[in-house]
Amino acid sequence: MIKGLQSMSDLFSKIDLEKGSLGGRPVENRYLSNLRGFFANEDAYQSCLEQDNALLYSVSSMTPAEGEGQLHLGLGVLYPGKVGDEYYMTKGHLHTKREAAEVYVGLKGVGYMLLEHEVSQESMLVSLAEGEVVYVPGYTAHRTINTGDMPLAYLGIYPWDAGHDYGAIAERNFLKVLVEREGQPVLLDRQ
Amino acid sequence: MIKGLQSMSDLFSKIDLEKGSLGGRPVENRYLSNLRGFFANEDAYQSCLEQDNALLYSVSSMTPAEGEGQLHLGLGVLYPGKVGDEYYMTKGHLHTKREAAEVYVGLKGVGYMLLEHEVSQESMLVSLAEGEVVYVPGYTAHRTINTGDMPLAYLGIYPWDAGHDYGAIAERNFLKVLVEREGQPVLLDRQ
Repeated sequence: MIKGLQSMSDLFSKIDLEKGSLGGRPVENRYLSNLRGFFANEDAYQSCLEQDNALLYSVSSMTPAEGEGQLHLGLGVLYPGKVGDEYYMTKGHLHTKREAAEVYVGLKGVGYMLLEHEVSQESMLVSLAEGEVVYVPGYTAHRTINTGDMPLAYLGIYPWDAGHDYGAIAERNFLKVLVEREGQPVLLDRQ
Repeated sequence: MIKGLQSMSDLFSKIDLEKGSLGGRPVENRYLSNLRGFFANEDAYQSCLEQDNALLYSVSSMTPAEGEGQLHLGLGVLYPGKVGDEYYMTKGHLHTKREAAEVYVGLKGVGYMLLEHEVSQESMLVSLAEGEVVYVPGYTAHRTINTGDMPLAYLGIYPWDAGHDYGAIAERNFLKVLVEREGQPVLLDRQ
């Protein structure tokens, strides 16, 4: 079925960086307690959590249409902070449809995307900051990391049927961790 | 074939709004002379062209991968100006693969996207400015229009196989024109 234009109410969105909302759409929050097992230093995680179940990031999604050739997108806002010496980050995900790529557009702040190819297991750390674009190819787990001192905001645009597979990451996590050493981000192998 | 990460050199791009380039990629320029027949007032067009074959807009594209689930994107920079009372605009296009959608992200400046559904012939004028997102559904001709006094810059993200069909627009143009009336943009039927 070919929809007309007027039947689609959802063609426009203002990006609200304060509220983390894409055109007034709902915002899903992820708190420190939602990322149990993701940070490398378990003691540091426990100690941070006891002090404050901090808001780590939020996502607001725009899903105007489904079907061949359609796209969905999400606004992510990732707050600054560290668990021990590991920077605040998203859980990260693979796409359920493994071929599906995603384009990230940095809107505010500074940070990185950690990419890990599911098949070759290669890792790549790619800058994501205001005015920068990162292409996440298919078969690539991706996580956003805030290394700055202000929120890192970005859009992610992906095929409507990409799907989010968080399970694979929750089970094995990424092979690398990004930690602060003498004020600089350093990528290390997970111990 | 599943490519590894290292074989893809093109995962990152800085957006260069001054040069109109996406990560240093080539910039294609469109001058007034390239838009013969697109503006409503043919006399005004001829007179503008005699004065100066002005640069109307540029596009720089990033096409990292092809195949199911992949995405391509382009950086557009549309300059301010008018031909008679009609604002500078892009040629506009339909996707060769008609189902394919496109997501526009406004980076700088103010303007509009004119959407026209190929089947229902409905038109819609949607704001496109810094911090705004427009979803162009399938089967929808789309053109960008600069109503401000500075360049309008935006990203367009689309499925790798969307394709650009400029022929259909060149033949019949859009049904509506956006002109300035007492300092304000007004959408009129094409005469």
